[in-house]
Amino acid sequence: MLLQLVNPNSTAAMTEAIGRQARRVANPGTRILAQCPPDTPASIEGHADEALSVPAMLALIREGRAMGAAAHVVACFDDPGLDAAREEATAPVVGLCHAAVTVAMATARRFSVVTTLGRSVPIIEDLVDRYGAARQCRRVRAVELPVLALDEDPAHAEALLEAAIRAARTEDGAEAVVLGCAGMADMAARLAIRTGVPVIDGVAAAVKLAEALAAGGFATSKLGAYADPRPKRGRPAA
Amino acid sequence: MLLQLVNPNSTAAMTEAIGRQARRVANPGTRILAQCPPDTPASIEGHADEALSVPAMLALIREGRAMGAAAHVVACFDDPGLDAAREEATAPVVGLCHAAVTVAMATARRFSVVTTLGRSVPIIEDLVDRYGAARQCRRVRAVELPVLALDEDPAHAEALLEAAIRAARTEDGAEAVVLGCAGMADMAARLAIRTGVPVIDGVAAAVKLAEALAAGGFATSKLGAYADPRPKRGRPAA
Amino acid sequence: MLLQLVNPNSTAAMTEAIGRQARRVANPGTRILAQCPPDTPASIEGHADEALSVPAMLALIREGRAMGAAAHVVACFDDPGLDAAREEATAPVVGLCHAAVTVAMATARRFSVVTTLGRSVPIIEDLVDRYGAARQCRRVRAVELPVLALDEDPAHAEALLEAAIRAARTEDGAEAVVLGCAGMADMAARLAIRTGVPVIDGVAAAVKLAEALAAGGFATSKLGAYADPRPKRGRPAA
Amino acid sequence: MLLQLVNPNSTAAMTEAIGRQARRVANPGTRILAQCPPDTPASIEGHADEALSVPAMLALIREGRAMGAAAHVVACFDDPGLDAAREEATAPVVGLCHAAVTVAMATARRFSVVTTLGRSVPIIEDLVDRYGAARQCRRVRAVELPVLALDEDPAHAEALLEAAIRAARTEDGAEAVVLGCAGMADMAARLAIRTGVPVIDGVAAAVKLAEALAAGGFATSKLGAYADPRPKRGRPAA
Amino acid sequence: MLLQLVNPNSTAAMTEAIGRQARRVANPGTRILAQCPPDTPASIEGHADEALSVPAMLALIREGRAMGAAAHVVACFDDPGLDAAREEATAPVVGLCHAAVTVAMATARRFSVVTTLGRSVPIIEDLVDRYGAARQCRRVRAVELPVLALDEDPAHAEALLEAAIRAARTEDGAEAVVLGCAGMADMAARLAIRTGVPVIDGVAAAVKLAEALAAGGFATSKLGAYADPRPKRGRPAA
Amino acid sequence: MLLQLVNPNSTAAMTEAIGRQARRVANPGTRILAQCPPDTPASIEGHADEALSVPAMLALIREGRAMGAAAHVVACFDDPGLDAAREEATAPVVGLCHAAVTVAMATARRFSVVTTLGRSVPIIEDLVDRYGAARQCRRVRAVELPVLALDEDPAHAEALLEAAIRAARTEDGAEAVVLGCAGMADMAARLAIRTGVPVIDGVAAAVKLAEALAAGGFATSKLGAYADPRPKRGRPAA
Repeated sequence: MLLQLVNPNSTAAMTEAIGRQARRVANPGTRILAQCPPDTPASIEGHADEALSVPAMLALIREGRAMGAAAHVVACFDDPGLDAAREEATAPVVGLCHAAVTVAMATARRFSVVTTLGRSVPIIEDLVDRYGAARQCRRVRAVELPVLALDEDPAHAEALLEAAIRAARTEDGAEAVVLGCAGMADMAARLAIRTGVPVIDGVAAAVKLAEALAAGGFATSKLGAYADPRPKRGRPAA
Repeated sequence: MLLQLVNPNSTAAMTEAIGRQARRVANPGTRILAQCPPDTPASIEGHADEALSVPAMLALIREGRAMGAAAHVVACFDDPGLDAAREEATAPVVGLCHAAVTVAMATARRFSVVTTLGRSVPIIEDLVDRYGAARQCRRVRAVELPVLALDEDPAHAEALLEAAIRAARTEDGAEAVVLGCAGMADMAARLAIRTGVPVIDGVAAAVKLAEALAAGGFATSKLGAYADPRPKRGRPAA
Repeated sequence: MLLQLVNPNSTAAMTEAIGRQARRVANPGTRILAQCPPDTPASIEGHADEALSVPAMLALIREGRAMGAAAHVVACFDDPGLDAAREEATAPVVGLCHAAVTVAMATARRFSVVTTLGRSVPIIEDLVDRYGAARQCRRVRAVELPVLALDEDPAHAEALLEAAIRAARTEDGAEAVVLGCAGMADMAARLAIRTGVPVIDGVAAAVKLAEALAAGGFATSKLGAYADPRPKRGRPAA
Repeated sequence: MLLQLVNPNSTAAMTEAIGRQARRVANPGTRILAQCPPDTPASIEGHADEALSVPAMLALIREGRAMGAAAHVVACFDDPGLDAAREEATAPVVGLCHAAVTVAMATARRFSVVTTLGRSVPIIEDLVDRYGAARQCRRVRAVELPVLALDEDPAHAEALLEAAIRAARTEDGAEAVVLGCAGMADMAARLAIRTGVPVIDGVAAAVKLAEALAAGGFATSKLGAYADPRPKRGRPAA
Repeated sequence: MLLQLVNPNSTAAMTEAIGRQARRVANPGTRILAQCPPDTPASIEGHADEALSVPAMLALIREGRAMGAAAHVVACFDDPGLDAAREEATAPVVGLCHAAVTVAMATARRFSVVTTLGRSVPIIEDLVDRYGAARQCRRVRAVELPVLALDEDPAHAEALLEAAIRAARTEDGAEAVVLGCAGMADMAARLAIRTGVPVIDGVAAAVKLAEALAAGGFATSKLGAYADPRPKRGRPAA
Repeated sequence: MLLQLVNPNSTAAMTEAIGRQARRVANPGTRILAQCPPDTPASIEGHADEALSVPAMLALIREGRAMGAAAHVVACFDDPGLDAAREEATAPVVGLCHAAVTVAMATARRFSVVTTLGRSVPIIEDLVDRYGAARQCRRVRAVELPVLALDEDPAHAEALLEAAIRAARTEDGAEAVVLGCAGMADMAARLAIRTGVPVIDGVAAAVKLAEALAAGGFATSKLGAYADPRPKRGRPAA
């Protein structure tokens, strides 16, 4: 099956890392296509960055649909444009926050999220609430590092994340921790080992959930809110 | 004060109608600037339409900020890009659904919403919930007319809306009805008279709420989630 | 337009301060009538104080209706008798907590409230929840000063409030702070400047929201829960 | 033990009926004192009626406290002034809606409420939500009879209630029905027999819950929100 | 009336203590039957312990029904099998958490719970939410003592509980504290005196609530979710 | 990987059908072990049936753990003992309702559930709420057929289900329908074709979700609520 991951930001290194992590966890029969648009913001830190990235991301989703993708992943933890992507697709569409929260709800009674900047905390809190995990999520924590700094000084970033995970365990009573940024995928396994806390990476969660939906034949319903966009002036032709 | 209304779709006739309604209810000292981008979808019917409209809308918000707008209105009932617009602005930013729900909550204990297409019902339900009105909103109803059909056969549209308002009163126990589309602004007063039910038009609600916030000195907080977007590659220079 | 503010407690100095603040923010065409009943409790600190104040407040609302008031403000942060006042009125009726929360929800993603006594904390939490802001309100804090102490030693009060606002910013992640007592109106501007945090005063918020509703023609719906009280033995004649 | 029931309206016949029902269900050792103030509205149909009744009701509560009442019941289904009464009392204070909902939650997984006028429906819905029963309560129904009409033509009233209870069973899936007015107490047993549906009368529920709290030594906590009202100008001396 | 208390664990000493506490608070006419099954886990610390205890507990409930018990109490704070017991019974069935939360909601505006092990915290949080007290419950705290340790070193246990109650008062703003384990019943009165905080013991709360329901004639509704289990292969004969 | 499905009821034919459906959707490398205990109730229709089935189901889960199962499925739509099973397991444990709701939330904005008996409606509503789907689930419908009747007259059962799915589409606005009983697995594909509505079978959903969790390395967290049960008298030795 072809699994399309679209990183909505335009940072190729992050897209490559996302692809690597996806291939690491994918089923043998899954072909990973990890893409990003050329000109969107270099990272997604807030709703304006999201908004500027979504149209180009949707164009890639439409291409993926034409290529016969079995499922799509919106490969950014803020799940930008997730509902819009479901309108554009017929295959299932999964977001990183959506998938990670789904995994956390299935494997831990209480969890916390650790993300980059404090400005993203309310965004993620509201996503967690939308995915129905408000009662299970103890807290969304920020290490106050910009997204791109994760890559610039990974050791420093990992130390901050490790401290935040430990705090989530002892202060929040978290039984698992969700990493709240696609750029943290590489660190998940090491952080879990070091802290003894289950650490859930959204890329891995999304790949597995997307494969599951696709292989189970669970397509996006086109009967209501996720019906194909209506053709009209100002929309790209189908 | 300069009050900027940005209709995110590209239908000039709707933008003009929005401007007319805005001028009708604006304070004497308010200058209304009603705009729409040139190339966005002709109407907003779902999240994909929203997504394609928001970047151009944000560019207009940035222009409005540069012109010293005292407040901004996102002039579409789905409130597309409302949070992103607050990041881009320093003045207050109001959405039509947001404002209409605010008015409904202040003047009626229970209300319903009447919108165009059924596909928008869950979108509006989720907005109503986000604005904290889930307990006060009885139901979101759709007349199953596309947005642009409102203008093509207004008499037919108005008859459908009138029937839906009456049903909201008798079946839902609604004490007021919110019109769930910017294109219905012209009909609000007539519908209220004919049905005897208070009818809340989002454009009027948004203009008055925006003026109130601006005149009261209540600016958008730039301290957290609505801080200015961080400068980065792929973002237009400030 | 005539805007009636009724302070339900009987402390004339507070009523005057409320009137001053109202005039400071009112539109040019707004005439402010700030009143309080003669014999109600000197301050509202709990539900029993509220209950003893409401009948006399409702009598003033009925007088205001007879005088043709365009809108009414219940000028106490606990919003005592707000629903009852809406039954008595036909014009819109706004409460201080109600208005301040409305402004906070429109201008900040997360906010906190700072009030006087701890005993009022659950009352305000429940109001915030009723107004649909439970997800957006981080915390209700108390400085443990009685209402009348605000006026007796304003410098001390202001220092306590300043500290609480700073704590709301750093500990709660509040992006704005609502002042939870009508007696704090005078201090809002100074506190905002000193702390750098947007500070929302309920009196200013209520005046602007009431003007907006009145000028927009948004009357209280008389169709259901807010219909005029039924005439009966034991009710003052209309 | 002395159990004080205060009917906040001034209709002596209703107070007597409440007393009768209370004595019917009270424990052998319980002395029932059923009272109403002389000059409050003849019935409670909305928040304004509530507001006009509460000060006199609180005065009776204070008298009951002085007489050593073991518990107090606010004997009106809208639970007017319940929180204020708890501030005035040290013994437990129970409301009819509060008690009936408590009983319904303990004995049925889903229930409905049947009340008098439609204008009370949102009031009761919000009470049910406050008492934590929003998930368990299917619907609040109104028979559109004024409170005093229950007594004027009891046979007609009972027929309407019977039909509403049957509708609650078949349409709502209610497993029990709460009668939403103190004036319906006499009819509960007959309605249960005729319909085969458990019918919960608030007066009986409140008497039993009040006795239980009192006999168990569960007093109203005076540590926070329900502390005694602070002495001040405009409050009756303790 | 015969009141049956079933401690689902098999520790006879705890069952005796539960019986003692029940007799201490029961009405004169109440006969207390305190029982436990012979072979269930020695204490209930988590869902697996619950699951292993419930079938034997249900058998005792069926015996109690046959003996004409007026009400049943599931005498464990996790309320294991409460819904199942209501299916098996016709008389009302009360749980300790359920009853204690009911009492706390009626006598305090905000409360906290203090339990044994941290692993039970989410279980109790979810129960509190189910009983509709999420807004009123500030926090569920654990002293990290196993259930049976309460009896092994009562002085140590009591000191830990006292500290937790004080923390609930000062840190959580709790106005009352619920003891979250049947094994703490003996300590409630002393802890209340020492801390000055109302302390609610679930056994006492359940006995009083069960008596109230039974004496009021409020039986378990057999019309829907709590209907008698359907006869079938693999179920003990009725 | 070894995937263990435990049907908690003792009906071998249903267990075989569950196994068939599981094998139909499983990945090539997945070995399906479908089991049921010998002496539990023949079907699960209510909490008492659940309770009687769980201990034997847990024993099978412990056996599955010893055999190295990569994941476990509680193969009953009421998800009986799901939390207890997570305590007993280290691999992920998935329930049918849990999995089906997870799939529905990912592929439809609004869905309904169709189950067997009305008595199960509140049970499923509460599960849906627990899994965070209260806003997305329109309604839980019952066809009023006992579980075992599905197998006795499949044509009749399928006709009833088809009618209920059509009603969910037209009356509820459901965009997908979840089949609320393990015994309906065989019919899902046909019902989807006949009605044109996406139909989600819990067995298929659970198999795919369980495989995804296992292959992604997402084990049950043993740090808090789902830690191994504490050894004690009355528990089977590990």
